[in-house]
Amino acid sequence: MAGSSFGNIFRVTTFGESHGTAVGCIVDGCPAGIALDEHMVQHELDRRRVGQSKVSSQRKEPDQVQILSGVFEGKTTGTPIAMVVFNQDAKSQHYSNIKDMYRPGHADFTWDAKFGFRDHRGGGRSSARETIGRVAAGAVAKQFLAHYGVTVIAWVQQCAHLVAQTHDEAAIEQNIMRCPDPVVAEQMIALVDEARKNLDSLGGIVEIRARGVPAGLGEPVFDKMQAELAKALFSIPAIKGLEFGAGFDVATMRASEHNDAFVRNPDGSIGTATNHHGGILGGITTGQEITMRIAAKPPASIARPQQTVDRDGNPSEIAIVGRHDPTVLPRLVPIAESMVALVLADHLLRQRTARVDWDDDEE
Amino acid sequence: MAGSSFGNIFRVTTFGESHGTAVGCIVDGCPAGIALDEHMVQHELDRRRVGQSKVSSQRKEPDQVQILSGVFEGKTTGTPIAMVVFNQDAKSQHYSNIKDMYRPGHADFTWDAKFGFRDHRGGGRSSARETIGRVAAGAVAKQFLAHYGVTVIAWVQQCAHLVAQTHDEAAIEQNIMRCPDPVVAEQMIALVDEARKNLDSLGGIVEIRARGVPAGLGEPVFDKMQAELAKALFSIPAIKGLEFGAGFDVATMRASEHNDAFVRNPDGSIGTATNHHGGILGGITTGQEITMRIAAKPPASIARPQQTVDRDGNPSEIAIVGRHDPTVLPRLVPIAESMVALVLADHLLRQRTARVDWDDDEE
Amino acid sequence: MAGSSFGNIFRVTTFGESHGTAVGCIVDGCPAGIALDEHMVQHELDRRRVGQSKVSSQRKEPDQVQILSGVFEGKTTGTPIAMVVFNQDAKSQHYSNIKDMYRPGHADFTWDAKFGFRDHRGGGRSSARETIGRVAAGAVAKQFLAHYGVTVIAWVQQCAHLVAQTHDEAAIEQNIMRCPDPVVAEQMIALVDEARKNLDSLGGIVEIRARGVPAGLGEPVFDKMQAELAKALFSIPAIKGLEFGAGFDVATMRASEHNDAFVRNPDGSIGTATNHHGGILGGITTGQEITMRIAAKPPASIARPQQTVDRDGNPSEIAIVGRHDPTVLPRLVPIAESMVALVLADHLLRQRTARVDWDDDEE
Amino acid sequence: MAGSSFGNIFRVTTFGESHGTAVGCIVDGCPAGIALDEHMVQHELDRRRVGQSKVSSQRKEPDQVQILSGVFEGKTTGTPIAMVVFNQDAKSQHYSNIKDMYRPGHADFTWDAKFGFRDHRGGGRSSARETIGRVAAGAVAKQFLAHYGVTVIAWVQQCAHLVAQTHDEAAIEQNIMRCPDPVVAEQMIALVDEARKNLDSLGGIVEIRARGVPAGLGEPVFDKMQAELAKALFSIPAIKGLEFGAGFDVATMRASEHNDAFVRNPDGSIGTATNHHGGILGGITTGQEITMRIAAKPPASIARPQQTVDRDGNPSEIAIVGRHDPTVLPRLVPIAESMVALVLADHLLRQRTARVDWDDDEE
Repeated sequence: MAGSSFGNIFRVTTFGESHGTAVGCIVDGCPAGIALDEHMVQHELDRRRVGQSKVSSQRKEPDQVQILSGVFEGKTTGTPIAMVVFNQDAKSQHYSNIKDMYRPGHADFTWDAKFGFRDHRGGGRSSARETIGRVAAGAVAKQFLAHYGVTVIAWVQQCAHLVAQTHDEAAIEQNIMRCPDPVVAEQMIALVDEARKNLDSLGGIVEIRARGVPAGLGEPVFDKMQAELAKALFSIPAIKGLEFGAGFDVATMRASEHNDAFVRNPDGSIGTATNHHGGILGGITTGQEITMRIAAKPPASIARPQQTVDRDGNPSEIAIVGRHDPTVLPRLVPIAESMVALVLADHLLRQRTARVDWDDDEE
Repeated sequence: MAGSSFGNIFRVTTFGESHGTAVGCIVDGCPAGIALDEHMVQHELDRRRVGQSKVSSQRKEPDQVQILSGVFEGKTTGTPIAMVVFNQDAKSQHYSNIKDMYRPGHADFTWDAKFGFRDHRGGGRSSARETIGRVAAGAVAKQFLAHYGVTVIAWVQQCAHLVAQTHDEAAIEQNIMRCPDPVVAEQMIALVDEARKNLDSLGGIVEIRARGVPAGLGEPVFDKMQAELAKALFSIPAIKGLEFGAGFDVATMRASEHNDAFVRNPDGSIGTATNHHGGILGGITTGQEITMRIAAKPPASIARPQQTVDRDGNPSEIAIVGRHDPTVLPRLVPIAESMVALVLADHLLRQRTARVDWDDDEE
Repeated sequence: MAGSSFGNIFRVTTFGESHGTAVGCIVDGCPAGIALDEHMVQHELDRRRVGQSKVSSQRKEPDQVQILSGVFEGKTTGTPIAMVVFNQDAKSQHYSNIKDMYRPGHADFTWDAKFGFRDHRGGGRSSARETIGRVAAGAVAKQFLAHYGVTVIAWVQQCAHLVAQTHDEAAIEQNIMRCPDPVVAEQMIALVDEARKNLDSLGGIVEIRARGVPAGLGEPVFDKMQAELAKALFSIPAIKGLEFGAGFDVATMRASEHNDAFVRNPDGSIGTATNHHGGILGGITTGQEITMRIAAKPPASIARPQQTVDRDGNPSEIAIVGRHDPTVLPRLVPIAESMVALVLADHLLRQRTARVDWDDDEE
Repeated sequence: MAGSSFGNIFRVTTFGESHGTAVGCIVDGCPAGIALDEHMVQHELDRRRVGQSKVSSQRKEPDQVQILSGVFEGKTTGTPIAMVVFNQDAKSQHYSNIKDMYRPGHADFTWDAKFGFRDHRGGGRSSARETIGRVAAGAVAKQFLAHYGVTVIAWVQQCAHLVAQTHDEAAIEQNIMRCPDPVVAEQMIALVDEARKNLDSLGGIVEIRARGVPAGLGEPVFDKMQAELAKALFSIPAIKGLEFGAGFDVATMRASEHNDAFVRNPDGSIGTATNHHGGILGGITTGQEITMRIAAKPPASIARPQQTVDRDGNPSEIAIVGRHDPTVLPRLVPIAESMVALVLADHLLRQRTARVDWDDDEE
């Protein structure tokens, strides 16, 4: 069943395989009248790109985006925005030896189980290249959100056992780990380098914040804001855990500690004194910062020999050659931001339909 | 925007407020020909019901379900299955004092922000009574899944700092905490009792397992199995964290430890030697057990006085009278099972459309 | 696959079989704050009801609606509005003889082909009783539309060869045929009576107008206003043809005759001098009246013996006893109005998301 | 709101403006394992192409399709199939004079009313070039349907007052009018030529047949087969009327004439002696031929001066220069076939989920 679309009103559909002709997306339902900056779309793709640094894969791809439709004289027209990136540096020969082999931690086996066969070149559509469409769409969503003063920011909080100890947001894009603690960032880079040399890879934690989100977004029951964000974030490859606000710590908290007192803000609006709830109550945003943490597994592709089986179940050994990320963490930052931006853009629009009368200025 | 439906092919829509006339659901897209046992639906609702024990709210509701349509001579007909439970023991007077007050940790403020006003009686639709429709639908899904040999089981693994130390699944439904460790269960019950007496409430962790799930379910990109399950589980009130497989522990694992080796099972099928991946790779099921853990916050309604504001932002103090759960954990067990069952039923049907030829027996 | 829902933002899901326990619907996505008059919902159901006159079936059903949720202190809350009508005068014994027989013109054969078996009592869910949920939902939609000054009206324009010659809208609800020509109405009633006595039934044409619809509703490509209305109207049982504006006459018109000149209206807005286009251009409303005509077949249930086969293909003869409509036309009027109202309500809400800024007052 | 997608399981999303960079589509949900012939996709686009003959627009476009994804070693993989056609012969200067003018019969006014502004070049997305994505997707659907023995065929039955008198299907693609009567075809061609010379355009009727469709497709209530086909066909530009089976003639038929008797076919299956019902009963296919007729208006673009207003409501006169179709009829044939094929492909897949057990061979 069609499963390559995300969102209800602001909706993206992605396409493309790692070693096919192109990857990209269609953004449908983007309102008319947004001043769309193509350079900003390219900038976001550049943040996501491989080959940026020694902590990511060495595949060389310019990832040059082309906007094919939906923009006229610099503004969105309300029609679908199609964006495409043609693949260039695809070295499919690296993959012929895995055609009949199931790489541990990879989707080879499950794709065969699902579809009966698979495009094995470079992981096909289960490659991280699929996220190009997400990031391009997320860049459009971010430009829509900017119109409302909503921003999304993410960073690498932890890599293996190394945890950021300080928090300087200006530092995030200044180091190749995207860690807000420049000192720990250097330690992380060294650790990633060590892991790569040891033919291994590392996991970690990315934190995401959405700011300026108006109160009232999210639907009360199945489409709760946290449910929509959870679907968005768990649709990213490699994610194994997610927390909002106090997260797993709530297990040992009592309501008397956990409940956030409502207070009057200096500007007269209503807020909370603390933010254990993470910006969402009853599935609906409170206007406080939305706080999220995701755990990413170590990339499955490692050059170290591993035990596995082939399609027929025969035991085999495999060592994965090619150009792979020793950690996904820094590249995960723009991807996670994009997915959160897509959810918020969708719900900003959904919220316009919640009441019999609606004036956008009230939001 | 319509947000009270869940699922694509096997789809439930719920309705109802805590102190309205009735709550219930429509299950649409359930295949024809399933022998549907109404007693089993009632049994699941009984598991979810309040007033079952001293660890849950004392509201007395028989929660008697009526099936209004979609079943003929004991079998589903392929048409919508409407199920309704009329509300009986609604004491709305308890709530008149909170009409203009924002209870900490509750959705009062956010509903006002969203809709401009709210049905304040008993929490309206943000009440846990909304989950009756989910559990009724989940009971239908479970009967469909049983046809395929798929089962879903859940239990309380942790309450506050108390963690189950042994795992006897036969014990789960034998104690009112639904904990697989009978000894720790007694400790948990005592702790809940203490918290209630101290006008407070407790959080904890529920674990969920889906077994017998065939390999191949889930869609590769946005509708990954973990993404769909995440949306389902985060749509349940009070959930703040979710892990699959190794969960947050992946942050400190290397691929050489985390990757699960593929092996040939004794029956000739392909499986994995370990299950760090939690039954899903690349968004698609592997045939291994799907393992999930969710963290539930302590219920926000406590009788202890709390600081808050009213609709106009005036500082106030509130003490919540009424009948409330000192912990949601045991009642969360059937609700979480239901949501997981709904996702699996939907994806079993979606999988029938993945290939040009399909024979259900092959699955 | 779930197919009992209609609409995207303003969305109705219906349930129920003719001889089951109840029929009804859930309206999800109705904005908060609409003053909802339950009597008006009942009034619309009364218009749809059987047993109203000698030109419809003699089944006696009060069709008393109960609103189970979604309304608080007379206003919609933004949550699902569940409405139910319990069945009363179900004489299932009339149907036991058709259990294994395929009535000509009926859905017995196709339901068996689809689901493998069927609830044969009273046509099950293919009975016209399913439209109760539509009319109840349509009544909610009409009350939302009234807020915008949008109205929908329908009437019987033709029954068999008898065509209304005059057009007095005040007369429509004054005669049991709902024909705007009181003289022809009497002729129609006599003809229906004759057909019934001859164990036969009659078809005809219903016209529908939507007025006060603002310009700009409808989506440019697949969800064109006419496409959405067409789906709505062809989802009503017995409809075999549909025209918008000049309809089939366009086949013999040239653009020089067919094109409607744009003009400035007295109030300064832009309109068209004529309305061959029927209120929609490029899939989007122009602000002119939306004009539709639907052709309804003669009801398939007639007491006259007919040739058919049974489930095994054995030739048989069947005469359909029971209480059936000799024409569906007058009852079709409120059903068609309801379906059109549902589409317009949905698109009024969709339109709020078309532009980066939106002020409902501009609409 | 996102409105550029069609279908539920087999789903197409189109993009592109007439004078933008490219037009195309993504087909998502196409099952894996279909042998996809790219030449056949190109062939269908060639049938739709302008500049084919003197009865269509003289714009020169090769309309060369590129498949960007979703196909591996000649077979569909189950992932999205993206297809793109880059625009070449776009003469936007023809359109600068209509930037602020509302062409009669066109969507200029309604787009402005909807979005606040529009891409006026060549009609933007309301251009017939949008249908390229539909035809490419339809070509994929046809190849899936072929696997089931389902075919869709269409032809021009009437142009202005000229109606085909004979029916030779082999003749359809042999004349530029796609009329099954070669003699009347010549008369039609002469008439179109005359209309063009008189700066006018012609309407007509296209008939469509779907053959080999198994019984059981379509959903009982809102997603009835005729409702889905109606939405599909009315989403095509210029369509003003649609009939199934006996169509508007049912208005004057009695059930005793209209009802089709069920009979046992020579092969033991069950069919009907006549086909007034047009292949669908109760919204579900009977296995008989599905018969449809659509009325297309004369193209609105004519070189003759017409009265209109500009954006400010000032009266103006307009004569539309450029390259336009004097009739859409022959090009409508592949477009209508494509839309019908998309609906049938979607419902073939939906039907796999209708029963608890499913074996594709039974279908």
